[in-house]
Amino acid sequence: MIQLYHHPMSGASRYIRLILGEYGVPAEFIEEKTWLRREEFLTLNPAGTVPVLVDDAVSKNRDTTPAAVAGAMVIGEYLDETVGAMMREKRLMPENSATRAEMRRLVEWFIHKFEAEVGRYLVQERIWKHLMRGDGMGGAPDSAMIRAGRTNLKSHLRYLDWLVQSRNWLGGNRLSLSDLAAAAALSVPDYLGEIPWDSEPAVRDWYARVKSRPSFRPILADKLAGLPPASHYVDLDF
Amino acid sequence: MIQLYHHPMSGASRYIRLILGEYGVPAEFIEEKTWLRREEFLTLNPAGTVPVLVDDAVSKNRDTTPAAVAGAMVIGEYLDETVGAMMREKRLMPENSATRAEMRRLVEWFIHKFEAEVGRYLVQERIWKHLMRGDGMGGAPDSAMIRAGRTNLKSHLRYLDWLVQSRNWLGGNRLSLSDLAAAAALSVPDYLGEIPWDSEPAVRDWYARVKSRPSFRPILADKLAGLPPASHYVDLDF
Repeated sequence: MIQLYHHPMSGASRYIRLILGEYGVPAEFIEEKTWLRREEFLTLNPAGTVPVLVDDAVSKNRDTTPAAVAGAMVIGEYLDETVGAMMREKRLMPENSATRAEMRRLVEWFIHKFEAEVGRYLVQERIWKHLMRGDGMGGAPDSAMIRAGRTNLKSHLRYLDWLVQSRNWLGGNRLSLSDLAAAAALSVPDYLGEIPWDSEPAVRDWYARVKSRPSFRPILADKLAGLPPASHYVDLDF
Repeated sequence: MIQLYHHPMSGASRYIRLILGEYGVPAEFIEEKTWLRREEFLTLNPAGTVPVLVDDAVSKNRDTTPAAVAGAMVIGEYLDETVGAMMREKRLMPENSATRAEMRRLVEWFIHKFEAEVGRYLVQERIWKHLMRGDGMGGAPDSAMIRAGRTNLKSHLRYLDWLVQSRNWLGGNRLSLSDLAAAAALSVPDYLGEIPWDSEPAVRDWYARVKSRPSFRPILADKLAGLPPASHYVDLDF
């Protein structure tokens, strides 16, 4: 069975959990505290980040170590090739290369750009430091960083608003990996109550469509000790 | 004909120039000063970064704007699907999904992680600020940032040393996109004379193999006014 090293509050990990859920692939989920930099985990992914997927089919078909697929974008491609390609109209990858490229651009946007401009500030200060303090690390949240993250989040919501008003789904006419990547990324600041939904009706309508999919249920069940989700977090009609 | 918006000193752009060179795809190269944030360019890529590929086949086969393929990782996949897939043994993408995943992990490493840990410090301070000063922007180089970039570069060279000693090429037994991504990324600090080749014999041997390919020649011809390359930069036997 597939094993996924992940963290419940990692948007990139949530992206892979959504893909596995959409395709109905059973998996064992192993929570990794990346800040502890476990030796065994660094062997699987020298970058030290989640998500990392381990699967017998990987070690059998590769001449090099590590016997793991590391990184959300890479795992997304791997699951498309090994599972999605057989899924016909449920496949989350568009059929033609030009549309795929647009979809991949948006996956990269939410995995890397959103993380660098929002996650690294807002989520780092409010969630990761909170969790690290439980292990005697982390320190106090920096309010200037939180403000910077909130400002950057507004720009991303502006862009999402433009996207969802000009397309049915983010990557084109059908649900695709880019919707899952974007919704996974947003879901973490949403846990914190950081998304001003009242001023984002178009983005909210798109997010509600993704959020109400059965694949999203496990994500809405994630709870952190000492840091409960915003009251509307689990609400499908928020 | 394909148009590539790029910059000669952008490692991510060089990666795409190498792919086009390896596949013998003719292209028109348009130098973009991304720091000027030209309106027309932002329409092609709202992230404002190079490389961006424009091709008639993109606008014909996509229902959404922009009619461009943006980002080095995404363009690499697009060129594999539209050109590489027909290249048989010259294809730069491994045949099986497990090996592809390892190759993609390394492409992502050199496009994103190397950029975040080395490019953003060393190249930003020594090249981009130099170029921006020509447009009345940029400011003076920050020596603390340069030192941080050099320290991070050492870690990347350690990891590359481990890779090239355990494999024939970075992605496995054959030249692949990961060799081009890594060599393109290294080539920019190498222009600055920042790579301590004498203490990196294994990495140097691998880099010399990539550097001596005909696809690399245009990159060795890149020169900046007022900032000449290190003396060994064009030398194939450095």
